[in-house]
Amino acid sequence: MSRIAFFADLMGTLFERHALGAPAPSRTPVEELCAALLSAPGEVSGVRLARDILSHYRAMGADERADFFRHLATELDLDADRVIAAATRYRDGGGPSALADLCREAEPRRQELLRRMNQAPGATEELVRMRLDLLRLLPEAPELAAIDADFQHLFSSWFNRGFLVLRHIDWRTPANILEKIIEYEAVHAINDWDDLQRRLRPSDRRCFAFFHPAMPEEPLIFVEVALCKGTPGSVQALLAEGRTPLAAADCDTAVFYSISNCQEGLRGISFGNSLIKQVVEELRRDLPALRRFVTLSPVPGLSRWLAGIAPDRPEAARLLAAGAAADPETMAPEVQTLRRLTAEYLLQARRPDGLPVDPVARFHLGNGALLHEIHALADVSANGFRQSCSAMVNYLYDLSQVETNTEGFLTGKVVAASKKVQSLLAQGSTTGRKS
Amino acid sequence: MSRIAFFADLMGTLFERHALGAPAPSRTPVEELCAALLSAPGEVSGVRLARDILSHYRAMGADERADFFRHLATELDLDADRVIAAATRYRDGGGPSALADLCREAEPRRQELLRRMNQAPGATEELVRMRLDLLRLLPEAPELAAIDADFQHLFSSWFNRGFLVLRHIDWRTPANILEKIIEYEAVHAINDWDDLQRRLRPSDRRCFAFFHPAMPEEPLIFVEVALCKGTPGSVQALLAEGRTPLAAADCDTAVFYSISNCQEGLRGISFGNSLIKQVVEELRRDLPALRRFVTLSPVPGLSRWLAGIAPDRPEAARLLAAGAAADPETMAPEVQTLRRLTAEYLLQARRPDGLPVDPVARFHLGNGALLHEIHALADVSANGFRQSCSAMVNYLYDLSQVETNTEGFLTGKVVAASKKVQSLLAQGSTTGRKS
Amino acid sequence: MSRIAFFADLMGTLFERHALGAPAPSRTPVEELCAALLSAPGEVSGVRLARDILSHYRAMGADERADFFRHLATELDLDADRVIAAATRYRDGGGPSALADLCREAEPRRQELLRRMNQAPGATEELVRMRLDLLRLLPEAPELAAIDADFQHLFSSWFNRGFLVLRHIDWRTPANILEKIIEYEAVHAINDWDDLQRRLRPSDRRCFAFFHPAMPEEPLIFVEVALCKGTPGSVQALLAEGRTPLAAADCDTAVFYSISNCQEGLRGISFGNSLIKQVVEELRRDLPALRRFVTLSPVPGLSRWLAGIAPDRPEAARLLAAGAAADPETMAPEVQTLRRLTAEYLLQARRPDGLPVDPVARFHLGNGALLHEIHALADVSANGFRQSCSAMVNYLYDLSQVETNTEGFLTGKVVAASKKVQSLLAQGSTTGRKS
Amino acid sequence: MSRIAFFADLMGTLFERHALGAPAPSRTPVEELCAALLSAPGEVSGVRLARDILSHYRAMGADERADFFRHLATELDLDADRVIAAATRYRDGGGPSALADLCREAEPRRQELLRRMNQAPGATEELVRMRLDLLRLLPEAPELAAIDADFQHLFSSWFNRGFLVLRHIDWRTPANILEKIIEYEAVHAINDWDDLQRRLRPSDRRCFAFFHPAMPEEPLIFVEVALCKGTPGSVQALLAEGRTPLAAADCDTAVFYSISNCQEGLRGISFGNSLIKQVVEELRRDLPALRRFVTLSPVPGLSRWLAGIAPDRPEAARLLAAGAAADPETMAPEVQTLRRLTAEYLLQARRPDGLPVDPVARFHLGNGALLHEIHALADVSANGFRQSCSAMVNYLYDLSQVETNTEGFLTGKVVAASKKVQSLLAQGSTTGRKS
Repeated sequence: MSRIAFFADLMGTLFERHALGAPAPSRTPVEELCAALLSAPGEVSGVRLARDILSHYRAMGADERADFFRHLATELDLDADRVIAAATRYRDGGGPSALADLCREAEPRRQELLRRMNQAPGATEELVRMRLDLLRLLPEAPELAAIDADFQHLFSSWFNRGFLVLRHIDWRTPANILEKIIEYEAVHAINDWDDLQRRLRPSDRRCFAFFHPAMPEEPLIFVEVALCKGTPGSVQALLAEGRTPLAAADCDTAVFYSISNCQEGLRGISFGNSLIKQVVEELRRDLPALRRFVTLSPVPGLSRWLAGIAPDRPEAARLLAAGAAADPETMAPEVQTLRRLTAEYLLQARRPDGLPVDPVARFHLGNGALLHEIHALADVSANGFRQSCSAMVNYLYDLSQVETNTEGFLTGKVVAASKKVQSLLAQGSTTGRKS
Repeated sequence: MSRIAFFADLMGTLFERHALGAPAPSRTPVEELCAALLSAPGEVSGVRLARDILSHYRAMGADERADFFRHLATELDLDADRVIAAATRYRDGGGPSALADLCREAEPRRQELLRRMNQAPGATEELVRMRLDLLRLLPEAPELAAIDADFQHLFSSWFNRGFLVLRHIDWRTPANILEKIIEYEAVHAINDWDDLQRRLRPSDRRCFAFFHPAMPEEPLIFVEVALCKGTPGSVQALLAEGRTPLAAADCDTAVFYSISNCQEGLRGISFGNSLIKQVVEELRRDLPALRRFVTLSPVPGLSRWLAGIAPDRPEAARLLAAGAAADPETMAPEVQTLRRLTAEYLLQARRPDGLPVDPVARFHLGNGALLHEIHALADVSANGFRQSCSAMVNYLYDLSQVETNTEGFLTGKVVAASKKVQSLLAQGSTTGRKS
Repeated sequence: MSRIAFFADLMGTLFERHALGAPAPSRTPVEELCAALLSAPGEVSGVRLARDILSHYRAMGADERADFFRHLATELDLDADRVIAAATRYRDGGGPSALADLCREAEPRRQELLRRMNQAPGATEELVRMRLDLLRLLPEAPELAAIDADFQHLFSSWFNRGFLVLRHIDWRTPANILEKIIEYEAVHAINDWDDLQRRLRPSDRRCFAFFHPAMPEEPLIFVEVALCKGTPGSVQALLAEGRTPLAAADCDTAVFYSISNCQEGLRGISFGNSLIKQVVEELRRDLPALRRFVTLSPVPGLSRWLAGIAPDRPEAARLLAAGAAADPETMAPEVQTLRRLTAEYLLQARRPDGLPVDPVARFHLGNGALLHEIHALADVSANGFRQSCSAMVNYLYDLSQVETNTEGFLTGKVVAASKKVQSLLAQGSTTGRKS
Repeated sequence: MSRIAFFADLMGTLFERHALGAPAPSRTPVEELCAALLSAPGEVSGVRLARDILSHYRAMGADERADFFRHLATELDLDADRVIAAATRYRDGGGPSALADLCREAEPRRQELLRRMNQAPGATEELVRMRLDLLRLLPEAPELAAIDADFQHLFSSWFNRGFLVLRHIDWRTPANILEKIIEYEAVHAINDWDDLQRRLRPSDRRCFAFFHPAMPEEPLIFVEVALCKGTPGSVQALLAEGRTPLAAADCDTAVFYSISNCQEGLRGISFGNSLIKQVVEELRRDLPALRRFVTLSPVPGLSRWLAGIAPDRPEAARLLAAGAAADPETMAPEVQTLRRLTAEYLLQARRPDGLPVDPVARFHLGNGALLHEIHALADVSANGFRQSCSAMVNYLYDLSQVETNTEGFLTGKVVAASKKVQSLLAQGSTTGRKS
């Protein structure tokens, strides 16, 4: 591309004069461009250089990308000695200007590079994909983790909650967005456009997503909602093909039955909590008859935990055997045992840090939800039987309680649970267990 | 407000348990809220706390605000000793995790606080205003400069070129935006709605502004453009009331006659260069007949410079005297002298760092523009006579030259100028000056 | 214009072959174009001919326009003999095809011409203006009234209620729409943009307009609304400059204090009734606390009526004298008399057809409103004193009563009035009058 | 429904007083509502009555709908005697007021009813469906044709070209619109969403539709366009799954390969001509490299015509036999014969009125297109072989010629054809035929 040639040329002259030190003879064109972008005064020529770097990057193979990341990791790092020197000056009374020096020195130069690359049109999306490449490299190249910290730092700032936009997703949404909903659905797969339509079009269904203004065609996270009378105990019933939709105004319960993160490249930047709470507020405003906001959530770690205790607990072994049959009739006699052991799992199985073993539980309880109800035969798909012997759970979002619950969960490791769930456990303790 | 009472309460319990150290008895409610927001895990309850802090801030008087900033400066600073320790660990081979520690330690905690405050709806705009309060305090409280560095760092990231949206401003623009154009115009004041209409409605006028998605009703910067045949040499002619508009398609020259920054709270975050270049591209696409993109710019430092040299240079003294009359006829005989001295001023009057004394010149030349033409009797308003004896200047934006020009200006301190302007100087050297 | 030359040419060939009869030698170019447009098969070349006719029309002076209308009136009329023949065939059992012939014959050909002219972009607006030209000609050229019936027939169909769009007008509305609000306000003049802002921006003000999709920048009619606590009795109080706005949610009364038709060219196509009712529904949905929807209306015919009865009724003469002073203090002692006579005027002064003399009363009562309250010193402007001695009136819109009221008004000539207003009259009968 | 009860009640009182004559005892509720709507003064209560009539109509079965239409046909007709009387008065010098009477008398009262029904929200769409019901009834109830004339008259006015909006249809279009594109495609069926995506998403595909503002989610007609280099001769090649899209800017030819009317209820209101011409203008503006605008059209009547001449023309019989094999290899030797006979069919096979037998030819030639090229093996689907032995045709739209062509076609019955097509025929005359 002649534009790159032009820049290669330009660089020649430019770098001799600039205080960048002699360019290493081994520098690749993209490394030259990065150096130029970092040395460009202010915003001058930034957009053009940024665009060129991104177009170089797109054309790279896997090995070149790894090299590029290594370049960022080593050549565009901070200099610890200069940080120490600056920090010492500041500690010794250097005042604001010493602090400014320190802050500048303590930021790896690649951070500024990424910020400048973001000036190009469409760059934000490309940088999110670039980080995804990096995440996939990390297992074999753990030394690149440092770069990931920079991505994460920048993305936290750019994808700040205050910049996100909540949008309704429905059957009037542009098709290019909808196809991404199909693609990104992570909990209960959407098979095709007809399936999608069943989730978006009926009067008792809702879907909401967060978007960022710089990536207007890429949802960041979305939640699917079913409006119901009463709390449903089965996801298959919820998604059944033939069902008759309810009038939204008649419903008293909103069920969050699927929450999917869309951008792997934004891993670690969490949107779910904000999304749920904003959707609760939105639904409450539109549909004043709604009284209850619950999830219908999987219990992904249950079977694994049952397998762990099965040697000592015959009822766990029985459950696993029934689950393996993947057949509701086989499970039917064990329904009560399943509910009881699920309660035990969620309330008592803890990680070393004292928080529950179950990741979905950690997410919702950390958000301030309460463990509201446990259902057997609630997910009778092959996967449902496999991961949790068909059990599913409702977490309840009561906005007036979420702060207290969060506080209790994070500091006291308290799992907020309804009386009903607690009594399951009690029942278990007295009748079902012999330990 | 009872919500604050609730939090005060919450804080009680919360802070005892949290590792925040004992809350100083003297902490104000807003300081408590800040501590709570910083200690809130992830996004939990952030929006609510952020909103409360901002509403507290809004209610504060000037003294309380100064206290609040002092709190940010002292209590929410970084700890230089911890930075040194972390930097030492990293230097000594601590790897990515040591780097992560270092980056965290080296960021003043108030930065994270500001990021979290930004989660509240409308917060970005309020934070920009908050920084404006700070900027106004700085002259008397220079120790707060450290905070300003944090604001500037965050704003650079948030108001990244990649996030800005260019919008046409015309007579179809909502009135609430237009009234801000009237308010923010900084170069040639807009007197009222009729005056505004004369700048926006005619077929040969354009206006463009940058907006940020989180502040959709607040322009960040805007530029007013006149489409002309040939390069105009008088702003009064450009803005005359009775003139007959040209058909846009017939024009060959676009004149940027006014560029105004709108948000004082974003001082130091520069948008002008990007705006001009994007507007050039936009206009070129819409109106292929356009051949020339120039400014019609003031020369704000000219009279001051003339006063400086007047003791040695009788022609400078003559010009100042004619300027003081603020009357075109008086100035008429000096027109050639005025043009020549303006050329000398712009090409030769330099700051210690070698760049031109004139701030407008520094801006456009730094953007890569070329000094194209100098006009006498070009701004015959009282202000025009006062600041530059009525002289104005065209800077030419030729996108194919801007990078070279910028490079030459910044590294070689070269002022790119047309032959015509250079010859003015030559003429001056030989005939007009005796030194 | 060469395109017209082209058509003139085309016409030559075209008309010889077409069954249009020999073109009269005196036909003007625009008449030729009209003939061509009418003879064009289907939509073929219609847009182009329509555009040409409209551009011809725009260029015409007043006399040419009158000639053009005369051409429509005489040459493009229906043929009564053919109508009679077709009607006879249909009466005598000709069936659907005879009916189709009849309908075609009974429609003046200019109607189809106008329909075809409407194919050109922007034509609807131009046809509305064309009718306005016609309306202004009618007083001197009553024979053209026949054309006006065709315009009215078409406009009734095109501007059918089902095609209109209700839009909020506020301070975020584009300036080109707002300047039309200033221009078209017919009841209480809007002096400038500041005055406009006072009517649109405060939290307790609303404005709504009907638009037609083919004229998206031209309001058809708009209503200005003040939200109040209680029913106001003075328009000056409502529009006062210094007042403190109320929170909309606290208001219990919506006051329609100004309704303006914008398009004189749509005279006779009435939108006001629909507008008021749709705005009532809109406001009720948004602001459930609203309990009362009233107008604050002028009484334009009062002074004239008082003058008529003054010879026999000394109190009427007194009122007129006090009104002539145009001074609240002079009127103060007569307040009760003024209210009583206003009640008498509105309830008892009738036209030969039995409906009230007052045109504003006819409008609102015909819409189903009820005469709710009468205020003295309610419009203390010069105009207010002149037309109604400062009296104004509230008409109440209670949607559950409007149909009954309309029915009663139109068939039984009943003026629906509150007890309070009726008692004014009673009071008058017994105490204030001696007849 | 109680609202209807309310009206039934209201009607009781209302009709006694109104000059509607005694209501026939047999009137159904919806007939009462129609009478009420027609008698309602101005717009009063119209919306409500209109809504009720439409909701009644929706609930009707087929027989009731037929009764409803019969009611419109007989009870709400015009009165021929009154028309004759009015026409006579006008002929005898009655002037504008006599003309107004005549116009009113000569319009069947159901027309005003339909206009008033259109005031209800969403009514336009329902009236279009109502006419579709009527069209389906017509074959068995030809006496209802009179009503259809009224529908057609109103729809011509409402769906005037000037009110239609052209919209791009692409992969960003809302899904609820796209599913209608799938449903309404009438030429080359769209199998599913993937197929749709292949027609909308590639850089060398376009789709445009007309919409009416009162039916914003219902396309009226749409055209699918392929951008090509050169004129394509096969629809299968155009729609092939694996093909590599071209850059739009490189294409020189736009091919209209499918035009579908969407609303059967708008039969007889023609949009296709306007659509094609406006799309040509739109494409020309966006893609200046486009030089040629052609269709790739079916020849639906070809096989039928071949069958008619086969007894006398052995080559026609041969073609039909090859076509019946529905196999390209079998057809290959006959390619030249097929092209020749297609030319003969399109140029020479005429209806009694002198216009071509082929309906697609009549449409495009009537629009002013020219028969540009004939392709064998151009549609090798089963249907393609069946209806036209695989032949397809390009009609060329040259906007500078369309008016002349239309004129020649409609008045002189001239089929505009390229030299190439004409030479096919000549070749046929001399070598292929023996007559």
